[in-house]
Amino acid sequence: MAEPRISSIDGKLAEEFAVPSHVEEVKEKMAAFASFHAEAGRKVVLITSGGTKVPLESRTVRFLDNFSSGRRGASSAEYFIDSGYAVIFLHRHRSLYPYTRMFLTINMLDALEFQGGGAPGNTGEVVVNQQVLPNIAKVLKRYEEVKESRLLLPIEFNTLSEYLHLLKAAAQALSTIGSKAMFYLAAAVSDFYIPASEMPEHKIQSSNGPLQLSMKMVPKILSPLVKDWAPQAFVISFKLETDASILLDKARRALDTYRHQAVVANVLDSRRGYVVVVTPETQAELILTEEDVKNEVEIEERIVSNLTLAHDNFITQQVA
Amino acid sequence: MAEPRISSIDGKLAEEFAVPSHVEEVKEKMAAFASFHAEAGRKVVLITSGGTKVPLESRTVRFLDNFSSGRRGASSAEYFIDSGYAVIFLHRHRSLYPYTRMFLTINMLDALEFQGGGAPGNTGEVVVNQQVLPNIAKVLKRYEEVKESRLLLPIEFNTLSEYLHLLKAAAQALSTIGSKAMFYLAAAVSDFYIPASEMPEHKIQSSNGPLQLSMKMVPKILSPLVKDWAPQAFVISFKLETDASILLDKARRALDTYRHQAVVANVLDSRRGYVVVVTPETQAELILTEEDVKNEVEIEERIVSNLTLAHDNFITQQVA
Repeated sequence: MAEPRISSIDGKLAEEFAVPSHVEEVKEKMAAFASFHAEAGRKVVLITSGGTKVPLESRTVRFLDNFSSGRRGASSAEYFIDSGYAVIFLHRHRSLYPYTRMFLTINMLDALEFQGGGAPGNTGEVVVNQQVLPNIAKVLKRYEEVKESRLLLPIEFNTLSEYLHLLKAAAQALSTIGSKAMFYLAAAVSDFYIPASEMPEHKIQSSNGPLQLSMKMVPKILSPLVKDWAPQAFVISFKLETDASILLDKARRALDTYRHQAVVANVLDSRRGYVVVVTPETQAELILTEEDVKNEVEIEERIVSNLTLAHDNFITQQVA
Repeated sequence: MAEPRISSIDGKLAEEFAVPSHVEEVKEKMAAFASFHAEAGRKVVLITSGGTKVPLESRTVRFLDNFSSGRRGASSAEYFIDSGYAVIFLHRHRSLYPYTRMFLTINMLDALEFQGGGAPGNTGEVVVNQQVLPNIAKVLKRYEEVKESRLLLPIEFNTLSEYLHLLKAAAQALSTIGSKAMFYLAAAVSDFYIPASEMPEHKIQSSNGPLQLSMKMVPKILSPLVKDWAPQAFVISFKLETDASILLDKARRALDTYRHQAVVANVLDSRRGYVVVVTPETQAELILTEEDVKNEVEIEERIVSNLTLAHDNFITQQVA
């Protein structure tokens, strides 16, 4: 019955959003990654992370973007790996990345020095100053272990079009492992876009006067993802609002509409210390205390812990 | 005579673009930097670099941005310093930065390793693998020299409002050193914005349907900069187009309108190998040959060399 609506989303994707040339290659890579880890008894999570770029011109000088450093996705990836998951990390080019996110606030050259200081004749090694980067040895060790065990598959996107097509490819690639797949859709995806057919080729000229932009609504890709592309998977969407008063209502409405498993609801100003995990039956507030903050606990550790437990229950129920 | 128009730009700046709280502090810092170096016999260049963020909501989730990695500004800063200039680097937060720009294409953790490899019991230093980063020693040495001699003053902006107010502050701060100041305005600044008074507070709801955006034109700040804020300075603007056929005409028109000293004109696709430096009397094509590219010559070296020469002539003429 829902056929026409869904194929219309598929049709829209093909018509109005440029297909990235490497999508089939990436899909095969993701499918191979998923079956390798599923066979080894691991669950696989697809994390989306960072904002999407929405071009206003086809030779793009200007674009619409969504606020997102990619912090939540990058840190969640680390906690999922610590929980035994293999992670496909579908992220915005140059957004925060697992493990390297520790370099965010420093200028790397301020953390390097010549071994033995500036002693004359010293042509030696360049070393990390571990007073500037106190966790570097621990983080590097963990990064190397993860690389060695191939638990992290990074895939990049830049534009909204790339994001949409790569997410569809990921959903199809992960459908083979059924309920062992989790989708953790933390990316900040634009709700609006300009179809390729309505986009000017060249840079919009300011000499033409004020800019009137008319943007269409991005198709709700969660709908075919849940219904068609990966119907057995455990799917989590994220809801970010600036107005706390409408947040939970919107989260519940999303669950009603898309019939997926959970919404992580958060408010812009408090997102690093407070989220609500909303499911059809439950509502769990996750909060960092002052003590937690002092101990550098991250809220993503709590989110991931909540969701991996729910995912295990979900898998058990599917099998039963 | 031009008074009303210019004070209207000043008025607009104050009314429609939020003033950053630290603008006076930054202005004093820039003025002190400029007079210190001018007294030491150095010229001072203010480089702007990176794109500006134009919020669509006051609690910003969405924003308009301009394509710019900040590469041109960051590499130019290095060449200006090599040419004896002191540099104020007014750049978009997290855009490319002088010297550290070498890390752009690598994951830093892939360039680090434990000294002596994974030998058992080795708890030692973390070192840079110089096969991954072959220039690190040279770059680090230069970075440390520049830091030591305080030739680089970094100032960050994020939004268009911050950019406009900080550029005005910089112009006023540099006016004390007269013709010894150069403005190298390489940032990709939005032509359009939404005034604070017309901006919704909260995240725009996609449930309201397609998005109609009506954006006003950003005041042409080059006009008061050249006429009022730093009338003796040597001022360079940049013109980026996607359509080569209108480029030089637009560059000439800008010189006619603003009466500054030069426009660096470039086309999006070829900007790393070809620019034209346009002045009221001359037009110089700067081109990288295949040989240059093979030798890793950067076009910014040519641009800076052309402009520092022109700046010297300009200073001589002012004195004469």
